[in-house]
Amino acid sequence: MQLGLVGLGRMGGNMRERLRAAGQEVVGYDRNADRSDVTSLAELADKLKSPRAVWVMVPAAVTDATIDALAEVLGEGDIIIDGGNSRFSDDAPRAARLAERGIGYVDVGVSGGVWGNVNGYALMVGGAQEHVDHLMPIFEALKPAGDHGFVHAGPVGAGHYAKMVHNGIEYGLMHAYAEGFELLSAAEMVTNVPGIIKSWREGTVVQSWLLDLLDRALDEDPDLATLTGYTDDTGEGRWTVDEAIRLAVPLNVITAALFARFSSRQDDSPAMKAVAALRQQFGGHAVHKR
Amino acid sequence: MQLGLVGLGRMGGNMRERLRAAGQEVVGYDRNADRSDVTSLAELADKLKSPRAVWVMVPAAVTDATIDALAEVLGEGDIIIDGGNSRFSDDAPRAARLAERGIGYVDVGVSGGVWGNVNGYALMVGGAQEHVDHLMPIFEALKPAGDHGFVHAGPVGAGHYAKMVHNGIEYGLMHAYAEGFELLSAAEMVTNVPGIIKSWREGTVVQSWLLDLLDRALDEDPDLATLTGYTDDTGEGRWTVDEAIRLAVPLNVITAALFARFSSRQDDSPAMKAVAALRQQFGGHAVHKR
Amino acid sequence: MQLGLVGLGRMGGNMRERLRAAGQEVVGYDRNADRSDVTSLAELADKLKSPRAVWVMVPAAVTDATIDALAEVLGEGDIIIDGGNSRFSDDAPRAARLAERGIGYVDVGVSGGVWGNVNGYALMVGGAQEHVDHLMPIFEALKPAGDHGFVHAGPVGAGHYAKMVHNGIEYGLMHAYAEGFELLSAAEMVTNVPGIIKSWREGTVVQSWLLDLLDRALDEDPDLATLTGYTDDTGEGRWTVDEAIRLAVPLNVITAALFARFSSRQDDSPAMKAVAALRQQFGGHAVHKR
Amino acid sequence: MQLGLVGLGRMGGNMRERLRAAGQEVVGYDRNADRSDVTSLAELADKLKSPRAVWVMVPAAVTDATIDALAEVLGEGDIIIDGGNSRFSDDAPRAARLAERGIGYVDVGVSGGVWGNVNGYALMVGGAQEHVDHLMPIFEALKPAGDHGFVHAGPVGAGHYAKMVHNGIEYGLMHAYAEGFELLSAAEMVTNVPGIIKSWREGTVVQSWLLDLLDRALDEDPDLATLTGYTDDTGEGRWTVDEAIRLAVPLNVITAALFARFSSRQDDSPAMKAVAALRQQFGGHAVHKR
Repeated sequence: MQLGLVGLGRMGGNMRERLRAAGQEVVGYDRNADRSDVTSLAELADKLKSPRAVWVMVPAAVTDATIDALAEVLGEGDIIIDGGNSRFSDDAPRAARLAERGIGYVDVGVSGGVWGNVNGYALMVGGAQEHVDHLMPIFEALKPAGDHGFVHAGPVGAGHYAKMVHNGIEYGLMHAYAEGFELLSAAEMVTNVPGIIKSWREGTVVQSWLLDLLDRALDEDPDLATLTGYTDDTGEGRWTVDEAIRLAVPLNVITAALFARFSSRQDDSPAMKAVAALRQQFGGHAVHKR
Repeated sequence: MQLGLVGLGRMGGNMRERLRAAGQEVVGYDRNADRSDVTSLAELADKLKSPRAVWVMVPAAVTDATIDALAEVLGEGDIIIDGGNSRFSDDAPRAARLAERGIGYVDVGVSGGVWGNVNGYALMVGGAQEHVDHLMPIFEALKPAGDHGFVHAGPVGAGHYAKMVHNGIEYGLMHAYAEGFELLSAAEMVTNVPGIIKSWREGTVVQSWLLDLLDRALDEDPDLATLTGYTDDTGEGRWTVDEAIRLAVPLNVITAALFARFSSRQDDSPAMKAVAALRQQFGGHAVHKR
Repeated sequence: MQLGLVGLGRMGGNMRERLRAAGQEVVGYDRNADRSDVTSLAELADKLKSPRAVWVMVPAAVTDATIDALAEVLGEGDIIIDGGNSRFSDDAPRAARLAERGIGYVDVGVSGGVWGNVNGYALMVGGAQEHVDHLMPIFEALKPAGDHGFVHAGPVGAGHYAKMVHNGIEYGLMHAYAEGFELLSAAEMVTNVPGIIKSWREGTVVQSWLLDLLDRALDEDPDLATLTGYTDDTGEGRWTVDEAIRLAVPLNVITAALFARFSSRQDDSPAMKAVAALRQQFGGHAVHKR
Repeated sequence: MQLGLVGLGRMGGNMRERLRAAGQEVVGYDRNADRSDVTSLAELADKLKSPRAVWVMVPAAVTDATIDALAEVLGEGDIIIDGGNSRFSDDAPRAARLAERGIGYVDVGVSGGVWGNVNGYALMVGGAQEHVDHLMPIFEALKPAGDHGFVHAGPVGAGHYAKMVHNGIEYGLMHAYAEGFELLSAAEMVTNVPGIIKSWREGTVVQSWLLDLLDRALDEDPDLATLTGYTDDTGEGRWTVDEAIRLAVPLNVITAALFARFSSRQDDSPAMKAVAALRQQFGGHAVHKR
């Protein structure tokens, strides 16, 4: 089927390639003319037959502006898909805005990162059943080859919601491995940390794709000596904890992993300064002066 | 090669089977005569040619007694292997005790649970290089078929140490998935929690064997309605946190997972009673009376 | 000076009393005519000379409606004070709305609970310097007798912000004592838990007003046997953690205390059900069936 | 009454002073002759009438050796008191050892730090009732003047146990304040962090001695700019968490405070390096290179 695709960066560009390889017809638009198949959103709309489906794959900061611009050139019966990292709570307002023009809206949480072009993209979809049904050829082309990697998670917003929770879990998983790595590294009697990690790739309870990647990273740099612990976060972890607070769900593990990222970006901890100051006050304990 | 195997319960029995299928010669002993190949440890020792290797696969509580009994019937140049869930700190004293008689000692952390007979057992080994080299045919027969699943982690104790950390990580991983499951279950807009979990099995960052098992559990019981959250712990999680405290390693994620198990076994929280009492005292906030 | 006071419940009623005892002139309004000095907001406005100051002390859910109704009967140069438990982020929009009519706005976080009438109310104030200066006689009458208990924390919103953080800290403090209480209660060798708590009231590092209250609660019920651990939360704790997430501040202790309240309200933990299900899958570990 | 006092450092020296001021007769011994009243433990024993009571106030590392040396010069019916920071689990073995010689043993957890000489020392006592009764004049002289500050917590070990939990709570309390301080410091709208802290000293739920000390520290250095967050721990926090693990008590708050100290002493987090490495592997996320 035909698909308009707006945003041809690393993710969008790879997705165009995978879709075309699967025999789908893609008209791509990007601000960067070198990548773009058309020169404007209007031309993109012209090249697609009604009902049109246009997938938006742009940074979260410009998603709303892009969708609103698209709405100007699309019409009744068309569908806009947001495959970017939007916060789920942005989805329902967008859907309502588009519904006023008769335009459908589907949100898709996409996982797979830089590996998606090879392995396929895991898709978590939110939207009306009829819209999802209509778009199935696209989803089939993008998803991994096996039985899994696609879910219709619920109404509009549920796709990004599922992806948000996926990423929250990801924080917790990574940090569990990371803590184990640190403990092994600290233990006097353990002489072969990378070998232990590698051995776990088969036959253990902790085997996973993330563990494979950790082994890969240790193959390249056995002590991780070339990098620092400074680690960004891209929003989904924070949104996950915000939701846990809203819904009164105790989320100790994922929150601890999020807070560890915050700490990793501090040169010094203001809280620990206060603790040091208190210990000096009541106990005369030595502090470390600047 | 020849191996004596003491303890033919679920794990030991399956290991005997797997070893024999790989062409190794196993003489098994168990208190339960129905399973046993010999009637005593002395007969077991008699049936093995020197230098003998005897693998002990008994509950942790009786491991020391079993090893000491074995030491009476073994001699100079023989090797005892403990494949049970011993605490790593028990290994060095045992090795020292056995060394006085010229008997070698190797500790092996074994992962694989009820799946090991089919998939192979992941083995984390601690001990002297010469002992490990001597035992390689046995390790090769037990380990999974692929490139991984075996490591010589360091000197005596390092095998159980690696297994301990493996289990600590396992606590964190399980709890990360569990928190995600709970959050999805609480979200109003998510209509298909088991479908989301299932979809993650391919193409996502969170794919893993544990995730496959969670999907399997949800296939059998989509709301996990038939069971309670009461969850035991078998020691390795506690030892992991004890070690983190000894080595001053911040282990927030794994510890949170351990504490959640403790909470799961409490009918009510004494700490929260104290919080409720305090709130009543200073704010007149309502408490829930028994 | 003159003060209008809207809302004469437990807090507002006590504050009217304390203000009058200090020689301030208070005109109070409450929907409940038995408590009210006037029959309407309009009558309240009539009884006050310009520039009027009206303190709103109503439940957070009706604060905005009350302020908007007040704005109809007040005018240029008057000041509205919100002393309720508003979220700090509600303050700036209110101030902007009122500024259009020339009405000033001051937010006050009030601590002291049921003890405030005796000990005075601690006041954390946000707003313009001129408004705060004008209201000082009121603040002086309400605050405790000593050197402390009042702060001009910053511009509009800063008063509620400071109160929010105060309450977040309160969560952490209470839970620290609560954990200590639980550990003492679990220890075999400790025979006198209430006695230990009581002894700490003097000469120790942990002495505090909250500890005094815990001792008081244990005097009434040494094992806290009459109540359950079920504990509500009133919003400030959640807002504190939300802010920590927004500002990337690692807030492990306060968040753990908040999550413990969430857990206290669950009959069973969905997360721990998932952990139990996983352990059954990979290890054949027994689960507790419903 | 008479008391032998071994160890006249900062704590022991002040205690001798306070005891003498209260009319007790103290014979002090210290390796440093300038402080010492006698030249040897033997002379100390000689100067005391039977039944003798000797209080040991030396660093934990030399407590056992000191007690054993004392046992050589004391005899049937005498009592040794350990007022140092011993781990509670050391107390019962000591008591048993001394009991063989007919010497009694009492353990005392002492709080008060550098303030104890002025305010009195809070005492948590473990031991037999008859020994505690005999020593009451000493305890009365050392404890604060008010109704509190002394408890007979249970049999031998219970005094150090209560002190250990006291210190664990102290970790949690300090960290709760510290987190609040950090959040206030990060908030854009808060212009007067030290003023807020100071205001809380009266009329609030969070008022405490520790808060007074935090205010005092901020008076000296409003941004805590002269010190770093590097913070030691002296053992009691670790023992508290070890006990929680042994007794299956979920101790999330105190443990988070302990782990924050561990983190404060790391130049970089090995765990966060592993997280950064993983993110680079699966998502091509930028890492910070050394």
